Amino acid sequence: MPTLVMKFGGTSVATLDRIRRAAKRVGREVANGHDVIVIVSAMSGKTNELVGWVEETSPMFDAREYDAVVSSGEQVTAGLMALTLQEMDVPARSWAGWQVPLKTNSAHAAARIEEIPTENINAKFAEGMKVAVVAGFQGISPEGRITTLGRGGSDTTAVAFAAAFDAIRCDIYTDVDGVYTTDPRITSKARKLDKIAFEEMLELASLGAKVLQTRSVELAMRFKVRLRVLSSFEDNDDNAGTLVCAEEDIMESNVVAGVAFSRDEAKMTLLSVADRPGIAAAIFGPLADASVNVDMIVQNISEDGRTDMTFSLPVNQIARAEKAMDDAKASGEINFSQLVTDADVAKISVVGIGMRSHAGVASQMFKALRDEGINIKVITTSEIKISVLIDRKYMELAVQALHDTFELHKTA
Amino acid sequence: MPTLVMKFGGTSVATLDRIRRAAKRVGREVANGHDVIVIVSAMSGKTNELVGWVEETSPMFDAREYDAVVSSGEQVTAGLMALTLQEMDVPARSWAGWQVPLKTNSAHAAARIEEIPTENINAKFAEGMKVAVVAGFQGISPEGRITTLGRGGSDTTAVAFAAAFDAIRCDIYTDVDGVYTTDPRITSKARKLDKIAFEEMLELASLGAKVLQTRSVELAMRFKVRLRVLSSFEDNDDNAGTLVCAEEDIMESNVVAGVAFSRDEAKMTLLSVADRPGIAAAIFGPLADASVNVDMIVQNISEDGRTDMTFSLPVNQIARAEKAMDDAKASGEINFSQLVTDADVAKISVVGIGMRSHAGVASQMFKALRDEGINIKVITTSEIKISVLIDRKYMELAVQALHDTFELHKTA
Repeated sequence: MPTLVMKFGGTSVATLDRIRRAAKRVGREVANGHDVIVIVSAMSGKTNELVGWVEETSPMFDAREYDAVVSSGEQVTAGLMALTLQEMDVPARSWAGWQVPLKTNSAHAAARIEEIPTENINAKFAEGMKVAVVAGFQGISPEGRITTLGRGGSDTTAVAFAAAFDAIRCDIYTDVDGVYTTDPRITSKARKLDKIAFEEMLELASLGAKVLQTRSVELAMRFKVRLRVLSSFEDNDDNAGTLVCAEEDIMESNVVAGVAFSRDEAKMTLLSVADRPGIAAAIFGPLADASVNVDMIVQNISEDGRTDMTFSLPVNQIARAEKAMDDAKASGEINFSQLVTDADVAKISVVGIGMRSHAGVASQMFKALRDEGINIKVITTSEIKISVLIDRKYMELAVQALHDTFELHKTA
Repeated sequence: MPTLVMKFGGTSVATLDRIRRAAKRVGREVANGHDVIVIVSAMSGKTNELVGWVEETSPMFDAREYDAVVSSGEQVTAGLMALTLQEMDVPARSWAGWQVPLKTNSAHAAARIEEIPTENINAKFAEGMKVAVVAGFQGISPEGRITTLGRGGSDTTAVAFAAAFDAIRCDIYTDVDGVYTTDPRITSKARKLDKIAFEEMLELASLGAKVLQTRSVELAMRFKVRLRVLSSFEDNDDNAGTLVCAEEDIMESNVVAGVAFSRDEAKMTLLSVADRPGIAAAIFGPLADASVNVDMIVQNISEDGRTDMTFSLPVNQIARAEKAMDDAKASGEINFSQLVTDADVAKISVVGIGMRSHAGVASQMFKALRDEGINIKVITTSEIKISVLIDRKYMELAVQALHDTFELHKTA
């Protein structure tokens, strides 16, 4: 029988009523002839409660104990979901991560999946069980201790199961009904995408369209798992949600798939840096050590052996970054004349695999911004993405203008 | 190093503060040179919450899923306790039941312990771990699923660990400071016992002195585990609480150890029952089938082939019992002239291993009741216990009179 993986996030299992609604969806897929593996998160709020207790008990906690405590939330939901399915006469049982066993490395609180043996669960499918309900986000280390995959690890669990069981699809039920061309709160013209390529989804996810955990999309791309994102709060037909899939599964698409943005960015420029081999490492090493998440980096051409280095970072990391740069200057590691910080910028990106074969996207983007009188401060480009930093106050205007110019409200 | 088992119930670990207080006690025992195995319950209220969810989801729940859900509460406390100890620089780690592994049979929700291998935990003690924090009340079945031992199973877990690890003592921390000669709410002369024999404790526990789960005392008696009951809310010296131990460990004791009582009893009499072999089975079979907990049974001498049969039962089971008897009469299984129910009785028991070697306890008891004008309705006796049924309104008076006549306020 074809296997389907269905994943329900915390808000989709927040109450017994919602668990029942989710179970009904599972029951329909069983009626459609699927063996189903259900991956569940903890009931909304539970993980935060448990994490809170651990942090209050021990600020520098032992991650092995953190995992033992925090993994219990998913265990509860898995049992309740199995019971709900049984009440609906759907043969089901729950599995904690260690029972599968979902084998991970020993990196507690951020473990990597190493192997998912299929024997135990397949034996139960062979006996007539129709649904395996698996506690997401957790596994077992080589030492026999419970591990967790880190926040959002339930999406990753779902994709890994879909890969291990060669599932026809991995449906991620969440509180949004799919992936949009941009945030509908910015423009009412935003349109839900029926399909999006893995590569596009990765760029959109990391840019702030927080629908799917990046790691789960990477895993899906590597193992060619067809991922569908859809709402657990609406009635869905077979074409509901957004299918995240390989490029070759998308017949025709817009050149630009979506416009992403990130509001709370800052721009930092080191003026007149002595340009020498290794200077980038000398600058970005101390920033990484200070846990500054540097995003865009631009280096101007060098004149007289000196250059300007500009980078973007989250606005709440400015103080850390400035201290790291001042310390590096004081210690003689780097040399610059001035550090200029702009705390009022936003990042806008247009993303689309169509760009690869379609010239002129960048110039069309720059023209649209110019027509609105928006000044571009930094530009970076990749094969399927163009990003710019602009004044934060123009962010909404820029998103709307770009959404219009690339006609994202229209289907391809 | 001598191993000590310490068990903390739900109220003793109800909050992070209380867990810290409990951990301090554990730390002191480590400082005293013990390797410690700590058994924890779920935080007070958590198990009820989880059970409520299961029952609401599925009234006729699959006990395997019940166990998967309900066992999570102890897992959380075990992790938090281990973290708290680590914060106090006490080397500790948590163990879920399946990690030990505490092996049980497959009787989910009421599993029996079959084996506790000591290798895993002892290996960690050998590496320098000082405290193994074990989630109480749970184990693993031969099929690899989580089992629970039933309510109160944490006491039983603690005693079983003490037996398996040959512990010098098993300290049960609870919300009372020991076992009393009777309920202090009935008479201010009630006195805490320093020591009590297993047999006495069993009679007192089953009679309503709800300090220790009966099953845990039976287990302690079988394996000669020295059990100490003491308060987690007071500072205890080495002689705090009550030691439950073998008779031979008690040098000298009162003839009577305590006076127990049960308030909500009823008495039922079948008048003029046709007396024939098998009549007791014919009466008590249907009562057992109707889930009536019959306690005392008295059969009068037979006259003319007919007898009266009297038994006691909880007052809230009267309707069930009456229906069972009427049905049995209607079907011709039994034959009696009349069913007389007295819903206003209480049971009083005096318990003491000293009775074995000391005659006259019964007559002293009856005389004390007579002096207060209290009529005795039913009497049963065992080797170390005498129980009577009396009118409920005299219950407090009877307890006070018996406490006085046996001089229980005085130490032996």
